[in-house]
Parts: sequence; structure tokens; C-alpha cells
Amino acid sequence: MELVEKVVINDVMLRDGLQLENKLLSVDEKYDLAVNLIEAKVPTLEIGSFVHPKFVPQMANTGELFKRLDKYVSMNLVALVPNLKGARRAVEYGVSQLNFVFSASDTHNLENVRQTTEESLKNYELIKGFCDERNVKLDVSIATSFGCPFEGEIPTGRIKAIINKIIERKPNIVTLADTTGMANPKQVYLLMKTLNEKHPEQRFNLHFHNTRGMGLTNILAGIQAGVQSFDTALGGLGGCPFAPGATGNVSTEDAVHMLHNMGISTGINLDDLIVTSAKLREILGHELSSSVLKAGKYDRKYPVPSKNKH
Amino acid sequence: MELVEKVVINDVMLRDGLQLENKLLSVDEKYDLAVNLIEAKVPTLEIGSFVHPKFVPQMANTGELFKRLDKYVSMNLVALVPNLKGARRAVEYGVSQLNFVFSASDTHNLENVRQTTEESLKNYELIKGFCDERNVKLDVSIATSFGCPFEGEIPTGRIKAIINKIIERKPNIVTLADTTGMANPKQVYLLMKTLNEKHPEQRFNLHFHNTRGMGLTNILAGIQAGVQSFDTALGGLGGCPFAPGATGNVSTEDAVHMLHNMGISTGINLDDLIVTSAKLREILGHELSSSVLKAGKYDRKYPVPSKNKH
Repeated sequence: MELVEKVVINDVMLRDGLQLENKLLSVDEKYDLAVNLIEAKVPTLEIGSFVHPKFVPQMANTGELFKRLDKYVSMNLVALVPNLKGARRAVEYGVSQLNFVFSASDTHNLENVRQTTEESLKNYELIKGFCDERNVKLDVSIATSFGCPFEGEIPTGRIKAIINKIIERKPNIVTLADTTGMANPKQVYLLMKTLNEKHPEQRFNLHFHNTRGMGLTNILAGIQAGVQSFDTALGGLGGCPFAPGATGNVSTEDAVHMLHNMGISTGINLDDLIVTSAKLREILGHELSSSVLKAGKYDRKYPVPSKNKH
Repeated sequence: MELVEKVVINDVMLRDGLQLENKLLSVDEKYDLAVNLIEAKVPTLEIGSFVHPKFVPQMANTGELFKRLDKYVSMNLVALVPNLKGARRAVEYGVSQLNFVFSASDTHNLENVRQTTEESLKNYELIKGFCDERNVKLDVSIATSFGCPFEGEIPTGRIKAIINKIIERKPNIVTLADTTGMANPKQVYLLMKTLNEKHPEQRFNLHFHNTRGMGLTNILAGIQAGVQSFDTALGGLGGCPFAPGATGNVSTEDAVHMLHNMGISTGINLDDLIVTSAKLREILGHELSSSVLKAGKYDRKYPVPSKNKH
């Protein structure tokens, strides 16, 4: 079993997690959670998006949040942008790392951003030029990379062609996102093995949802294919607008717990992470799908029942 | 990524799943569920245990259930037994495959069956002799093989020594059970690789709980180490008496779903399995931890939202 020694975790709770919550968090609440995550040594955070507040009111205070966090400017604090307009606004707020997202599936992309994948790739060129002129890092996330809830299977050839196109312009990080939890570990392993061999200089990142319970298996498969960078969300927050009750992103604490148990370092303080997850649960007022939050770490010891009898 | 082509699933819902439920199922209810699982082509089932009804009232009708299922005598229908007395009763009811369970941890074994591990190994000799005389298959399950909730880590040397001892007498199947969900995939891979190399003739089976979300990753790791046999429970039923709210056994439908997606065959009809899991949820009257039951299979397609607008 070939494993890497070190993995970078990018927590996306404040963006992908919160964007489906009914409760709108204040800048103060988001700020506290972000600082808790930073203090738990989570190395990179996606903390919001510059999208129209009419569509995603949960993200309306993203600019303000970045301003509040300006003393953490040396951290990797990322904002999602769906287009050049969003990129311009993000940069106005001092954001230095953007994540441009579009879908490999035309149907999904048309639903999300009213563009075909081809049109989004042209937009990427514009945004990349804009960022390069300003020394802003540009990441790219390809949604529905492992399947589309409308179209079904997305041919691997299509994913590879999109990635070839993107990489020509030297993006910072390229994320393959399993937007609705359709990926399986064999599929992840085979695709990432090929991509890592073809583009050894490119940092790839993987973003899994735990919709069908395979989130951690897909991280394990990614690691075996040499991937060292993963999106996860505190508490396993997030979800799928189409599958009520389904779990969301892979939980950050579950992922870190598994990685540390396997001797893979993340630099993160897991205990601090669990405390922050419990705080998030209190703020939101509902259970979270995280396993480690409920059950504790693997080495949690219990009193021996018979020793308590008198 | 080395994978096997075929895996045998042993569903333990009727035993390990139901034994922690408040609701006591009737023989009729259990019979229907068992027949549904048999008709879904689940190749082996652990359907009850011969333990004292004072301690586990949920299993009190196990003998009656075996009698009702006597036309399925050619199937692998297994009963758990904790001692020779249980084995005698099981055989009286016509059970032809027994699973003798004890713990690798002395503390855990003393709590469960008031014996040290050493004493249980002596009991194994007696039960094995009893079974051999009657042509009854005897499996052995070693609880807390990957850690104990009271003692913590169980040294690998201790597990290996127990297995050496058991294998001398040629048991049918040897199960390593992660009783409270402490195992991680690296640990599983390393231990099973060693055991498979040392005992190539022995069929090993793995039993994981999803307490910390690593159930499917541990199955994946077991497969990579060459294991082809796993315990799972319909709906992910079961749990840990010490961790309220924690999830139980790996869900059979989640495991089968992942295996089929990876091209590994189980012979099981997944759709039938999901229907039976929904029935189980109705009988028990509470949510189950199964992911696929909630979210549907990976290839479930959704209507395109904008196409529904007028």
C-alpha cells in the first residue's frame, strides 16, 4: 500500500458547507470559526464566494469576512468565483487566491452559471489574464469530474481534455470535484494516476462528497495515486440540493483522524478541530454528519462496566 | 491498485444489528427479512445467537427462526455461540454452521463472557471437538482484533498468536472483528497481508464497524491485502453500547454498492437489498445509517431544475 507522508487539507466548510444552510451566519460567527480553524493549523481555507447574493445569500458577507481576516494575509484564504465579475470584486476586497469553478458537464454548468463548459473555459482565459496581471493566484475547480446528477457518466476523455486546456495557462491548483458523491475509489485511483503521470508539475487537489459513504475511500485511493491535497469541510457540512438527508462533504475531522492514524501528517491539531466542530454544531443548532465528533477518536477509552457495579 | 474480482458478503444484521435494538422482532418479522436477503442473493447470513435470553432478549427466538428457515438448509445460515452450551443448543435446532466469538482483549472478554482469552481458547478446543464429531462447521470470530475500548491497543503479536492457536485445529472461517470501529486502513492492510501470507489456506473474514467513518476504507484495504470475505449489516444497523449516536456495522448496501462500482462482483442484487433495507427501517421505526438508502445509487439521475420552470 503506497502512501504519501504528508497531505494538505483545505477546509471548505465556510463556503461549500454553509452555502446550503438555512441559517445565515454573521461575519462575527464566520470570523470566529475561521480563526479557530487557523489556530488548529488548518493550512488552507476556502471561506466564501463572490456570487450574486440573490442566489446565495449565505455568502453575501464574504467580502467583509476577508477584510476582517486581513491580519491572516499570509495564510491561504481562498474565495470561489464563478466569473470575471466575481474575480474583480474579490480582488477589490484584497483576496489573493481565487478558485474559479465550472462543471465538466454542460447541463450542470448551464444550470449553475448559465454557460456551457466551452464558454467557461473561455472565461477562464480572461480571469487568468486578470489574475496574472495582479499577482493573484488562480485555482480551478472542475465540478462533476466523476459524474453528473443530470447527465450521468462524464467521459474520462472529456475531463482530460479540459485539464489539458487549463494547464496550458499554468493555474495554481487544479481541483477535481465529485460534486454529488458519485466517485468510487477505483475510478479515482485510475484517473489520478494517469493525470499525475501526465502532469507531474501540476498540483492536483480532490474534493469529495460523502453522499454514498465513499468519501474517505476516495481520499485513500487518491493518496495511493499520489495526490497530496484534499478539500474537506468541518463537521462534514454541506450536502446535495437534490438528495435531502444525504451527507455532505467529507468531514475534515474524520479525514484528519484517518490520515493521522495511518501515520500521514497534516500539521493539524485534531483535538482543536473537534472542539471547533462541536461549536459549529451549536451555532447551527443541528447534528452534523461527522463520525469522530459523535464517537470520539479511535483511542478513546471507556470505563469497564463491571468495575462500576457495587 | 490490486483488487480481487469477487467478494463474499455475510450479512449480520439479524444478529449484530438487532441485538442492540429496543424493539424485539418476532420470528415472522425476522423470517421475512431473512428470506428477502436470501432472495437478494446474499450468500451467507448470521441470523442469531444462542446466548442467555436474560442478557440478549433480542435473540431469544433464534432457535425458532432456524426451524422456520429449514428449507434454506443449503444456504450458509450461521449462529453465534459464546460457549459449548450455546453450541449444543444450536445443534439441537439443526444449525450447521456456528460462529464462536471471543475477544483478543482479556478485559473485553471478561466483560462479555466472564472468561479470559486463554480460557476461551480452551473452550474453542471443546467446541471444535463437539462440532467435528457432528460435521458442523465452526467459524471463529476474534473481537477487538484492532483495538479494545477498555485496554486500547492490542499488540499485533497477541492477535497472531491467537490465530496460530486457532488455525492448528482447522476452523472453517476466521473473522477479525473491529468491534468498536478503531481500525484504520493501513493497520488492516499490514495485518491481513501478513496473515494471508502466513496462512494461505485459511479463509479470513473481516468485520468492521463504521464508528469513525472508516468502515468502507477498511474493506478497501482488506481487499488490497487479498481478503475476499466481509461481514456487513443491512442498513448499517448495530452500534456501540458505549458511544450513543455512533454508527454501527458497515452497511451491506453501501459495501455492495462500492464493490459493484469498482467492478468487484458479490452476486447480490443491490436493488433488492435497498428495498429490504427500506422495509427494515419501517419495521424499526427509525432512520438507518446507510448512505445508499438515503441518497440512492451513484447513477441516480435527477430532473434538470430549469426544465421544470414554466
